[in-house]
Amino acid sequence: MPRRQRGPQRRPITVELRRGPLTESVHVVHAVVVDAAGDIQQAWGEPERLVHPRSAVKPLQALPLVETGAADAFGCSDEELALACSSHNGEPGHVESVEAWLARIGYSHEDLECGVEASRGPTSARNNCSGKHVGFLTVARHLGVDPAGYIRPDHPVQQLVTQALAETAGETIDPDRSGIDGCGIPIHPVPLRALALAASRFGSPGGYWTDERGAAVRRLANAMTVHPWLVAGTGRLPTDLMAAAGGDLVVKDGAEGVQFAALPGRGLGIAVKALDGHVPASEIVLGHVLAEVEGFDRDDVFGPRRRIENHAGTHVADLIVT
Amino acid sequence: MPRRQRGPQRRPITVELRRGPLTESVHVVHAVVVDAAGDIQQAWGEPERLVHPRSAVKPLQALPLVETGAADAFGCSDEELALACSSHNGEPGHVESVEAWLARIGYSHEDLECGVEASRGPTSARNNCSGKHVGFLTVARHLGVDPAGYIRPDHPVQQLVTQALAETAGETIDPDRSGIDGCGIPIHPVPLRALALAASRFGSPGGYWTDERGAAVRRLANAMTVHPWLVAGTGRLPTDLMAAAGGDLVVKDGAEGVQFAALPGRGLGIAVKALDGHVPASEIVLGHVLAEVEGFDRDDVFGPRRRIENHAGTHVADLIVT
Repeated sequence: MPRRQRGPQRRPITVELRRGPLTESVHVVHAVVVDAAGDIQQAWGEPERLVHPRSAVKPLQALPLVETGAADAFGCSDEELALACSSHNGEPGHVESVEAWLARIGYSHEDLECGVEASRGPTSARNNCSGKHVGFLTVARHLGVDPAGYIRPDHPVQQLVTQALAETAGETIDPDRSGIDGCGIPIHPVPLRALALAASRFGSPGGYWTDERGAAVRRLANAMTVHPWLVAGTGRLPTDLMAAAGGDLVVKDGAEGVQFAALPGRGLGIAVKALDGHVPASEIVLGHVLAEVEGFDRDDVFGPRRRIENHAGTHVADLIVT
Repeated sequence: MPRRQRGPQRRPITVELRRGPLTESVHVVHAVVVDAAGDIQQAWGEPERLVHPRSAVKPLQALPLVETGAADAFGCSDEELALACSSHNGEPGHVESVEAWLARIGYSHEDLECGVEASRGPTSARNNCSGKHVGFLTVARHLGVDPAGYIRPDHPVQQLVTQALAETAGETIDPDRSGIDGCGIPIHPVPLRALALAASRFGSPGGYWTDERGAAVRRLANAMTVHPWLVAGTGRLPTDLMAAAGGDLVVKDGAEGVQFAALPGRGLGIAVKALDGHVPASEIVLGHVLAEVEGFDRDDVFGPRRRIENHAGTHVADLIVT
């Protein structure tokens, strides 16, 4: 059970869309920075607010792939581990890697239960979650269990996935609060603070885990930072930010405006939730928190995300932290 | 100057995204119902809040096309008038109609200054605003002015467009508050109440306008309700709602969660603004207001918009007015 001694707590961060002098829209964003001991270093808004981390915890959902020995048994590369942690764009390089991995473990995209993203064409291999799902199939194959229904709460794979979240976030999972994700798997809300705790220990595992889990999180974090394009794709924040940080940051985004970031060198984890689910606002706030906490003020990464251009390329509006 | 006597005023409407039992995201939405005399009948939130109507006032921006005589001079059909009021999907039927109209007035898509929507391929005819822009070109041609730069604030076309907004909303335009729209034209904020007033008089012009303007708004409103697919497109709320209402409703949506609706039979106008710009929340609230004010409770139109399915078609979440 982490300690919950609180550092400074402030109001939620407001991100305004300014078009000319007018505030056109307003986004309210909660954020928290937690150290690996579980202490809150900074908080804006409600650190105990329950959030669905969605895809932001794919790096945690990939732990069984490594910890069961499935990754080693099937010779998974670091590229494949990065894909297991990804919400990818479905670019050709992503899809080809997913399909090659599927073929190597004896499955095809027809075994994926993540569904087809209508805008991406007819194969579920293009679904942004397909890398995670091949990871699940790899675990099922390694465990020798029937892969069919691997997205169901009672399937052995999902039980391991839920256990990994509970242990890394330090939370008891209440099945009565669970939901279903876009890709069909069960999801479980955790306090924003617990999500940040999981991030801090994902980036800085020393002393908090068994040697086996410590090695697993190091391996996954390394795969993500070495192959950031596979974690998201062209133009995406996790890719640009991890590429810019060169190993000093692990970042994963989730639907409905959730961000999960680890600062291994500082032993800190950051969790962000835009109350309205607005993804760009959550990105701007992650940049704001990184600048304030870490002095990591990369205008090359965040400047273009704060600046809104219209279809003709004219600068017409800005997203501003107020 | 409209009277500003207020009817009942309540807190903003909250739309929650519920995933399982958890409130995952929250949207705050302002709405107001105004009659043609300018009296507020109902208000949720801040009716005097300044908003950028964005594309929600395309029907007003099309007034010069009719009122200058340009539409008659170039034989514009009701289909073309509907396109002039549209934010269309860029479906083949939209693009073909835009290109035919352009050719008839002696221009091509290269004369459009709305820019190219990257996701829609290489021609600006596919831009959702292309119908409005052909309308602008038609006015320029009819006035005998140089069409180049027709999106600039000092161009005669934009001066007429701004004047139409000022007169229908009953507001003085302050150029110091103006912004630039996604399609490059100048835009001007108005109070949400004034947007609803413009809607009420757009749907129910009797007694408030000169005969000429009354005829123009009737002609545009009729074009929109008779050709709702041209105003938006397949699967879009304005299309589905106007088709369901059969002439009893005129509806136009705008970026950043703005809705503009007229109830001609009741002489009422409705304006909605999601504070965070969330379009689905603004749609749900329009449905809520229509049900409350008009008893127009069309679950066939709004039910599917309240229900969120994942990629596999499983019902996973709901948008709920709370």
